[in-house]
Amino acid sequence: MLKGFEDGAVPAGEARALCWEIEAFNRAYATALDDGRVEDWPGFFVDDALYRITGRENADAGLPVGLVYCEGVGMLKDRALAIARTMMFAPRYLLHQITNERVLALDGAGLITATANYALYETLVDQRTTLLQVGRYYDRFVRHDGALRLRERHCVYDSLIIDTALIYPV
Amino acid sequence: MLKGFEDGAVPAGEARALCWEIEAFNRAYATALDDGRVEDWPGFFVDDALYRITGRENADAGLPVGLVYCEGVGMLKDRALAIARTMMFAPRYLLHQITNERVLALDGAGLITATANYALYETLVDQRTTLLQVGRYYDRFVRHDGALRLRERHCVYDSLIIDTALIYPV
Amino acid sequence: MLKGFEDGAVPAGEARALCWEIEAFNRAYATALDDGRVEDWPGFFVDDALYRITGRENADAGLPVGLVYCEGVGMLKDRALAIARTMMFAPRYLLHQITNERVLALDGAGLITATANYALYETLVDQRTTLLQVGRYYDRFVRHDGALRLRERHCVYDSLIIDTALIYPV
Repeated sequence: MLKGFEDGAVPAGEARALCWEIEAFNRAYATALDDGRVEDWPGFFVDDALYRITGRENADAGLPVGLVYCEGVGMLKDRALAIARTMMFAPRYLLHQITNERVLALDGAGLITATANYALYETLVDQRTTLLQVGRYYDRFVRHDGALRLRERHCVYDSLIIDTALIYPV
Repeated sequence: MLKGFEDGAVPAGEARALCWEIEAFNRAYATALDDGRVEDWPGFFVDDALYRITGRENADAGLPVGLVYCEGVGMLKDRALAIARTMMFAPRYLLHQITNERVLALDGAGLITATANYALYETLVDQRTTLLQVGRYYDRFVRHDGALRLRERHCVYDSLIIDTALIYPV
Repeated sequence: MLKGFEDGAVPAGEARALCWEIEAFNRAYATALDDGRVEDWPGFFVDDALYRITGRENADAGLPVGLVYCEGVGMLKDRALAIARTMMFAPRYLLHQITNERVLALDGAGLITATANYALYETLVDQRTTLLQVGRYYDRFVRHDGALRLRERHCVYDSLIIDTALIYPV
């Protein structure tokens, strides 16, 4: 478990409504990535967002960086653009299964702390589908014009060996 | 993404209630198939339903047919009967994980457009469990005696190589 | 399907509220196990609970025992303690994806019958993530101080070959 993501005491009614909103958010997020609309991906974050992909060993040890580290929407857009160009040369299909959404905390300023588990499958041309990564999202959401947006998403994967060619967002 | 399954603007309250109904439907559907009650499978569809299993490449190219194509409940029942007979000779266990349900559109006549992601696992006698297929359901639901029924289910799988012996419904 | 877990007729409104509670329960349960807090695991059960892990073949044949069989919270605590000690010598990461929660019955005394599908992934040091087990939980919940607790959990896995070294709870 990532530090700062302890299980708080959100009242059941509030947790339920927020959990549904987060599920809807995560499903739209996954659809954008799975459909290859990587250019829409930065739109799920606020301007000063933090996005990170790191291994569980790193996360447990409190190491801040990892495989991918983006601070601010500018870095997310740069990454999206680079990936959009790469994808033309290495076509692949991706599919997310996002489950186990949990709302952990809600502070007075409207910051929502939540987690979810994900499995990410990849299919390359003429190959069988493989499980690319399983892991947990550690998220902080804020409300922007009424809708949820990510201020932080830490994608913490279990796999200790990972294809370092992975650059597509998780 | 399949053409005609664009993300519409369903009000959040309505989307939430429908999404829950669709989740309950999909879970009952999966249970019937996973329990081997293939004879119950046509009952999830209306009489003039369309059921199809096809690859993402085919779907993206707009090709109408695919691996399996059934038009009308008669074809579904034929298929169910054929499978029920086959299963006696080739026992296998199936398990669906259905996630990421999304309600995309709701028209004035009550037609509901929705998607979901699925993973289908297969276990043959004396073998390890394998991931048979991951993909997305592209669905159109109608209401029949108050309950949801499928008018269309397009099962679009990612895997580019697939066991063509697959005849069990997805 | 396990005997005694037939699909009952729970009114939709009640089923929906209970289903959400069970989803929240299962997600907290999975988080405890995935975070390695096995000492918290017995707390999800009532004192006279039954916990069992068994194969689908065994379950279909009505055989009562299986791979793991615990009756009463004392046996659960013994198991948790043994595992906590073992884990120090064989570190591994686990991740559950729990989906397809269904409420099947609710009796006058408040006993809730439900099922869910699970996939359990394991990652050993310096190895790729593997699918350890897929299966279905067959559960009976009761309410204890307002919150759900398990009176019975039967973990029925599909895999016919299984690593018998598995002792961690599912």
